[in-house]
Amino acid sequence: MTPFMGNDFLLTNDTAKVLYHDYASKMPIIDYHCHINPQEIAEDRKFENITQVWLGGDHYKWRQMRSNGVEEKYITGDASDYDKFVAWAGTLQKAIGNPLYHWSHLELKRYFGYEGTLSPETAKEVWDICNEKLAQANFSARNLIKMSNVTTVCTTDDPIDSLAWHKMIAEDPTFDVQVLPAWRPDKAMNLEKPDYIDYLTKLSAVSGIKIESFADLKEALKARLAFFASMGCKISDHGLEYVMYAPASDEEVTSIFEKRLSGEMPSPEEQLKFKYAFLLFMGREYNRLDWAMQLHYGVRRDNNTRLFKALGPDTGFDCINSVNCSEQLAAFLDALAQTDELPRTILYSINPIDNAAIGTIIGCFQDSSAVGKIQQGSAWWFNDNKTGMVEQMTSLANLGLLANFVGMLTDSRSFLSYTRHEYFRRILCNLVGTWVENGEYPADMDFLGKMVQDISYNNCLRYFHF
Amino acid sequence: MTPFMGNDFLLTNDTAKVLYHDYASKMPIIDYHCHINPQEIAEDRKFENITQVWLGGDHYKWRQMRSNGVEEKYITGDASDYDKFVAWAGTLQKAIGNPLYHWSHLELKRYFGYEGTLSPETAKEVWDICNEKLAQANFSARNLIKMSNVTTVCTTDDPIDSLAWHKMIAEDPTFDVQVLPAWRPDKAMNLEKPDYIDYLTKLSAVSGIKIESFADLKEALKARLAFFASMGCKISDHGLEYVMYAPASDEEVTSIFEKRLSGEMPSPEEQLKFKYAFLLFMGREYNRLDWAMQLHYGVRRDNNTRLFKALGPDTGFDCINSVNCSEQLAAFLDALAQTDELPRTILYSINPIDNAAIGTIIGCFQDSSAVGKIQQGSAWWFNDNKTGMVEQMTSLANLGLLANFVGMLTDSRSFLSYTRHEYFRRILCNLVGTWVENGEYPADMDFLGKMVQDISYNNCLRYFHF
Amino acid sequence: MTPFMGNDFLLTNDTAKVLYHDYASKMPIIDYHCHINPQEIAEDRKFENITQVWLGGDHYKWRQMRSNGVEEKYITGDASDYDKFVAWAGTLQKAIGNPLYHWSHLELKRYFGYEGTLSPETAKEVWDICNEKLAQANFSARNLIKMSNVTTVCTTDDPIDSLAWHKMIAEDPTFDVQVLPAWRPDKAMNLEKPDYIDYLTKLSAVSGIKIESFADLKEALKARLAFFASMGCKISDHGLEYVMYAPASDEEVTSIFEKRLSGEMPSPEEQLKFKYAFLLFMGREYNRLDWAMQLHYGVRRDNNTRLFKALGPDTGFDCINSVNCSEQLAAFLDALAQTDELPRTILYSINPIDNAAIGTIIGCFQDSSAVGKIQQGSAWWFNDNKTGMVEQMTSLANLGLLANFVGMLTDSRSFLSYTRHEYFRRILCNLVGTWVENGEYPADMDFLGKMVQDISYNNCLRYFHF
Repeated sequence: MTPFMGNDFLLTNDTAKVLYHDYASKMPIIDYHCHINPQEIAEDRKFENITQVWLGGDHYKWRQMRSNGVEEKYITGDASDYDKFVAWAGTLQKAIGNPLYHWSHLELKRYFGYEGTLSPETAKEVWDICNEKLAQANFSARNLIKMSNVTTVCTTDDPIDSLAWHKMIAEDPTFDVQVLPAWRPDKAMNLEKPDYIDYLTKLSAVSGIKIESFADLKEALKARLAFFASMGCKISDHGLEYVMYAPASDEEVTSIFEKRLSGEMPSPEEQLKFKYAFLLFMGREYNRLDWAMQLHYGVRRDNNTRLFKALGPDTGFDCINSVNCSEQLAAFLDALAQTDELPRTILYSINPIDNAAIGTIIGCFQDSSAVGKIQQGSAWWFNDNKTGMVEQMTSLANLGLLANFVGMLTDSRSFLSYTRHEYFRRILCNLVGTWVENGEYPADMDFLGKMVQDISYNNCLRYFHF
Repeated sequence: MTPFMGNDFLLTNDTAKVLYHDYASKMPIIDYHCHINPQEIAEDRKFENITQVWLGGDHYKWRQMRSNGVEEKYITGDASDYDKFVAWAGTLQKAIGNPLYHWSHLELKRYFGYEGTLSPETAKEVWDICNEKLAQANFSARNLIKMSNVTTVCTTDDPIDSLAWHKMIAEDPTFDVQVLPAWRPDKAMNLEKPDYIDYLTKLSAVSGIKIESFADLKEALKARLAFFASMGCKISDHGLEYVMYAPASDEEVTSIFEKRLSGEMPSPEEQLKFKYAFLLFMGREYNRLDWAMQLHYGVRRDNNTRLFKALGPDTGFDCINSVNCSEQLAAFLDALAQTDELPRTILYSINPIDNAAIGTIIGCFQDSSAVGKIQQGSAWWFNDNKTGMVEQMTSLANLGLLANFVGMLTDSRSFLSYTRHEYFRRILCNLVGTWVENGEYPADMDFLGKMVQDISYNNCLRYFHF
Repeated sequence: MTPFMGNDFLLTNDTAKVLYHDYASKMPIIDYHCHINPQEIAEDRKFENITQVWLGGDHYKWRQMRSNGVEEKYITGDASDYDKFVAWAGTLQKAIGNPLYHWSHLELKRYFGYEGTLSPETAKEVWDICNEKLAQANFSARNLIKMSNVTTVCTTDDPIDSLAWHKMIAEDPTFDVQVLPAWRPDKAMNLEKPDYIDYLTKLSAVSGIKIESFADLKEALKARLAFFASMGCKISDHGLEYVMYAPASDEEVTSIFEKRLSGEMPSPEEQLKFKYAFLLFMGREYNRLDWAMQLHYGVRRDNNTRLFKALGPDTGFDCINSVNCSEQLAAFLDALAQTDELPRTILYSINPIDNAAIGTIIGCFQDSSAVGKIQQGSAWWFNDNKTGMVEQMTSLANLGLLANFVGMLTDSRSFLSYTRHEYFRRILCNLVGTWVENGEYPADMDFLGKMVQDISYNNCLRYFHF
């Protein structure tokens, strides 16, 4: 029996162990997509207790607590931080097979030196150990990042963001980790939202361009793109219910936008046409700027209306939607490729059944402008677990070249999540090692060692031009 | 090599063996969803021969015989029971990797003490052994149930059913197994059926409420719900092609129902609106009564028109349909949750590709009114095999809390199917044991032993309030 | 560690080894579906170098080269054959987990006796070894077929094809391998194509029937069917974006066809109606002729418009489409079954998520006119890899009778692809062997040995009446 979370955690054969310990584990981390708040880095935030770190905004954990019948009071309510932690401990114990079980214990071990397991029985002990550590100076946001051997972090930022915190971090000579903004213009695209006009007003203000037409909107965005580029941005991101293909003439799109400006809500079909035109515009801009484009799609958000009203978005009420958009996705990429304006692109679907379709779509749009130009992103969100990663990498290997994969990202709001890169690397090395042990690839450790290092770090560096 | 169907059948490691033999195997059985005929329990039916038991109404077996090119005469026709059995033996031998191979041999072993394998060569021997046993007094329906360590059985019953057999069983002091009705109102919902008006007439008669409007229908159903509750019913069930979301005003639904009463067939869209209103009404009633709601969906029935006309429904001509309804399913659950009227709910899709979507949907509607309030049901029908169970439980563990799972049910018409609980428990213990052996969960046998016992029995007892 | 591509490649246990080495490996090959050019057999083509053999028309390899950032010049362009080969070698090295890695090395080993691995370092060595062999007389098309122990090959042919090469091969007493045509009437069905009228003109010419109505088209096709039958054809094939169900009256279909003849393009809905009528007609004809019907569906072709325009079809720009057609597929099969005119049928979906749906659909239409009458085809195209085959066979076994499976085909344009049958047989034997080793089926080697031989060869012989 392999001991729980021992040195060879998830490494089931000798080749896997060599690949992980001698190669992958030695590489630094680039976290090219996350939701870290840059203010917390700039101010080098410290945390009062483990509940703040773990349960402050982590809707992954909240969902499991609700699944365990825990009262909302102990989740997002006014119970004490300690009581919340105990409720979490009781939940976690039941999370066998869940990535939270592994993530939480990796964090306890790597950051807090705790070698036991969290349960209702050990909750007090863990609470004390963690809080004592958190009180130490070296447990600040920046130190956690440094301790994790991170060289680059990309946050997720709105076009209207001033990037003041990024500027402050960049100008601080005492902190040498690259903290770059990433461009996520969902609010500029989602014209069906009630506060869309307010958003445009803000965008006008920061860009200095009065927005009275779609052409103005594009100019305002271009101004902001230039600003983001000047701040080191190299990546964009979109969060989409699905990738749509809804071509319309410039005139029609212009008039849809005018309709919205005038206070009238465009029809659902018109909304799609506008969004598609918006995406096309953005894709072309990314290509011009030589940025990578990320598309995260397939989520149906805020399904529990009553609790959404009480708690707001990103509180644990999202699910996989039912739209299969692979045909539209292929048509969208083709529209960009027709004029040779398709940027490097990473596709993430929330539905694991899309793995094969994505694997075949990316193969249609590769070219010599970049190695692995079109990528399938690492197993995302609900799929960010051992099963999901093994399936994503197996599918990628079956249909394309695993060796060119840009690999892992945390997608997290927490400074303790960098252990997810360790988790990913162990799973990667075990997958590759298993193939080798079974005689499915030669035991060429020089090539394979380099390959897992590339997937862990080098591919990312090359692909994004960090 | 592990011997076929030996003591450690399906248990590939030591932890799995301990979990199964020392914990799971010791638990009694609650079969909370099946299609057993209560009359056969009330009358303590005996069987003349193994063909009656095995091939009398088992369309799972019929399909495989047809796949093997067996003439219909030997399946549902007038061949002798012995000839049918021989045809089945020849089919079964070819069913490597099929759950029927395991189920059949578990039944031969556990009930008939036969340790060999069934094939054309052994068919006569098996026929004789089984029939000799079946002739014994202790091979009656009740004795088979008792022998299987079953404490509770829930049948599947129409609202117009008198539940007379349930009453007889409950009042018989010589049989202490709980045999409870479960409410399945498909016939009251499916207004497109030609005999719908006849059905309403019967419902009027048993409820004492003349049905001249949708309001009357609801009153009639409420009367029957009260009667079912008085008979110990705690569970409902719906069989749906897909879960629809088709909101309409009360007036519209009322007029759709009136249209049908008047002899005119509502349009497909109107049918959906009626069915959605029906489901919403039922869901709220289940919540009021504190019953659990089961939704079985995704089946396209009776695909082979010619053979359906010859043989009727449930004869082996059903398949997975193509509708992906997860968005509508989420909207339906939300509609109930908005007024805090969502009952405990178990979701079963016939399409295994829905596992992840369901896992994310149930996570949106959990709350503190029950531990594991919204459940993904055990791998159903075409998925009720080792692959399907491993995938369902792995998905559940990745996305939620496996420890709160209410576990297995037979969904069967046969008194020999209780070995499917053994099959499930072995697969469960092997999955958990494998995680432990691989170092993915600590070897905390007290917790894990209790957990597999909970999933085998205790969760079910708690969840349904038996 | 199992050595790479050793004697026991992919065989992870003793039962698997016995099944493969003592049984499956001894069987000849029937390649019942491929895209070999019969002219190359008739003329006994030889190849100048390994690039011609491997990279001449193999869009599987081209995709991977593009994924690796190789310039089109080295893929389909005017670079030298040697430079192309080196570019391929660098790509292949990165293809860990990809079937091309296994296929390529099996071919190097079995046909060229090369025991090493191909990489940029060994490219020159491999180039020389292969080209030296290719220069030998015994490396002609016919000799490669003979060397591979192939007894029957079915090509893929258009109804207007003269089958002159097939005739020449059949009449040549020096070559005793059966090379049969297979009927693929896509061009006669796809009335939306710009060159459809031209095609009809050609069909009129070869059939001697002037096509002025749908009835004429059917007569012309019948004439060609008779000709194909006289040439030994026993199999048909259709390549479909999806299987449609779009019933229309004879009058309507007739008028849609007339519309097209008159130069007007029918609407998308009309196109579907025509195609559905066409498929129904063909299905009935296949049944009358006692041919098997193959349906390959689910592909969205030529997604990269710019490169499609430059390079044409079948150049590596196809992907999985988004249509789930299982409901329509079931309805189409039912339409044929209603009049007892459903021929033996093999279903191939390009989307692996359709496995379960297909498994349940085939079960609805089996009957005693053939053992395993309706088949799920072997894992196709993007799924033709270890993962895909294991999933297809596991699904088949769970839902039907694996023992009746007609097994593998190459679907290839190359004379070196027969090693894919070896690859398949190893995976089959390993799957079966693993079940036996785990105690899931008795170690009845007589039965299992025969079964793997049946799946490798005998089932095919029986099913297609070769």
